[in-house]
Amino acid sequence: MQAKTIQLDQGSGGRATHELVGELFIRAFRNDFLLELNDSALVNVENGRIALTTDSYVVDPIVFPGGNIGSLAVHGTVNDLCMRGAKPLYLTVGFILEEGLSIETLEQVVEAMSCAAREAGVLIVAGDTKVVPRGKADKVFINTSGIGVVPAGIQVAGQNARAGDAVLINGSIGDHGMAVLCKREGLAFENEIRSDSASLNGLVWKMLDAFPGIHVLRDPTRGGVATTLNEIAAQSDVGVRLFEEALPIREDVAGACEILGLDPLYVANEGKVLAIVPPEGAETALAAMREHPLGKDARRIGEVVADDPGRVFMRTRIGGHRLVDMLRGEQLPRIC
Amino acid sequence: MQAKTIQLDQGSGGRATHELVGELFIRAFRNDFLLELNDSALVNVENGRIALTTDSYVVDPIVFPGGNIGSLAVHGTVNDLCMRGAKPLYLTVGFILEEGLSIETLEQVVEAMSCAAREAGVLIVAGDTKVVPRGKADKVFINTSGIGVVPAGIQVAGQNARAGDAVLINGSIGDHGMAVLCKREGLAFENEIRSDSASLNGLVWKMLDAFPGIHVLRDPTRGGVATTLNEIAAQSDVGVRLFEEALPIREDVAGACEILGLDPLYVANEGKVLAIVPPEGAETALAAMREHPLGKDARRIGEVVADDPGRVFMRTRIGGHRLVDMLRGEQLPRIC
Repeated sequence: MQAKTIQLDQGSGGRATHELVGELFIRAFRNDFLLELNDSALVNVENGRIALTTDSYVVDPIVFPGGNIGSLAVHGTVNDLCMRGAKPLYLTVGFILEEGLSIETLEQVVEAMSCAAREAGVLIVAGDTKVVPRGKADKVFINTSGIGVVPAGIQVAGQNARAGDAVLINGSIGDHGMAVLCKREGLAFENEIRSDSASLNGLVWKMLDAFPGIHVLRDPTRGGVATTLNEIAAQSDVGVRLFEEALPIREDVAGACEILGLDPLYVANEGKVLAIVPPEGAETALAAMREHPLGKDARRIGEVVADDPGRVFMRTRIGGHRLVDMLRGEQLPRIC
Repeated sequence: MQAKTIQLDQGSGGRATHELVGELFIRAFRNDFLLELNDSALVNVENGRIALTTDSYVVDPIVFPGGNIGSLAVHGTVNDLCMRGAKPLYLTVGFILEEGLSIETLEQVVEAMSCAAREAGVLIVAGDTKVVPRGKADKVFINTSGIGVVPAGIQVAGQNARAGDAVLINGSIGDHGMAVLCKREGLAFENEIRSDSASLNGLVWKMLDAFPGIHVLRDPTRGGVATTLNEIAAQSDVGVRLFEEALPIREDVAGACEILGLDPLYVANEGKVLAIVPPEGAETALAAMREHPLGKDARRIGEVVADDPGRVFMRTRIGGHRLVDMLRGEQLPRIC
């Protein structure tokens, strides 16, 4: 790799591709599966239920306070797996690179992926690299797919919310979306808003170990808390009541949202989990969350009700109720 | 979906995304896993070895004689799985769509994916859709990842070639690359060159059932037969001899290659398998290939030797030998 930018021939499948893969990707993600250099990786999995997921990442800018597109791609896919109660095991990664991308930037992205994978305890076992001519993509797009194993006895799904359940969250909302947006628009506040991007499998497994009967886990990414709760309300045919005074919103995020005319309930998070827990397990789950670094600000933000199935309402500070609909229109493009 | 082109808000994660996913993707790929609408799909897998693979597709043009980016994305990932001796089971799909893409085109792509998945006997169980502003991608990029199960007793890998093995292929080489290139460059020949894009799991399992001791299976995609054999020679630390007179090249493909100054040995295939088979199994494997519609032109094109480990030589028609190196430089960008 003499050149300091990505060249078209690095996507040819020939020698230049092999050098890029060997010198950059395999060195960073090093493990026995990748070193085999076969069309597929072979992994051993115990009998049972496998969770399978995929996500493509097109965030702009690719580097933002608190992370970059590489760490985000690992966190997002790890989180999608643990939202089904799976223990994430193996990821694949597909890069689409724009000709002319700086190799230094790519190295930074790959290094962040490698760190994030190590922290989450997952291995990147297969990959693919395509290069498109300048102007046919924007710097780098990443797909991460992954598998995990769901232990016996765990039944977590969007269909399982029941009236009476508590709605919990592990911390402040809207951080990721506002971090990316402020960086993209060049907005500077006194304190830089940082993305909450993080792998949640450690936290989620603390919760499931404490109370295995959790009904729903879901990460409120694109569309934010409001859209995610609407999805769950529809899937489980229940209503959800949010308590406005309980919603954890950082002051700087609230301020930036107000200036930009955004509602933090619709802004993406990348290190948050909404947990819907039967009443008898709510305190246990909350206590377990608070013992984990990513859950120390955990709180109960609402409840599941039998009224208004498929809808989410907010009980406002002054005691009124307002409908919290699913996101309509594109609030923030390319946020993940 | 009122609009006839893709809009940015269809990537928001909100209502417009849900409508696109529901009306287009879930309708086309319909299965119980997708209908659950959870972050991951849960599938049951028997104890054992799971093959895991990923590929992104950026082919230009997205529709070409013999297929489109959608069918190609299914075929390619199905093939990567069976090249490890796996029975492909489940795929995930990640779309990156450019704002302004015609919905009709997208429907055509999705329909082709759905057909290809049905033909190959795989289910598309999870997906993701991103939309980027006009000019930030080129129409549509697709990632397909997948898993399959490798039955006990099958040991197929690029490391397993041994001196004395036969090198087999199921038919003509260079068809896919030349079909895409001729379409892109607007080259018209008397007979339109068609891509060979196809799922090979049926053929491969006919071969493995007939002779389970096959050493290596590999699909010669980007970089072509030459690059793939160089990879195998390096991984197995053996030499490979190709017989020039045995190489199956269609006349129209050979002609187009000559006009464009390309060597068909380096042109991508998407429905071909190179099989490296111990001598005692070569005839059995060949006979099994010829019984399958995708293998009726199967033949022996070379042999594995102990000399020149890591290198591929061609025995020419006039009895000389020339080195067949790995592809250098970008012969054909965006071919898959």
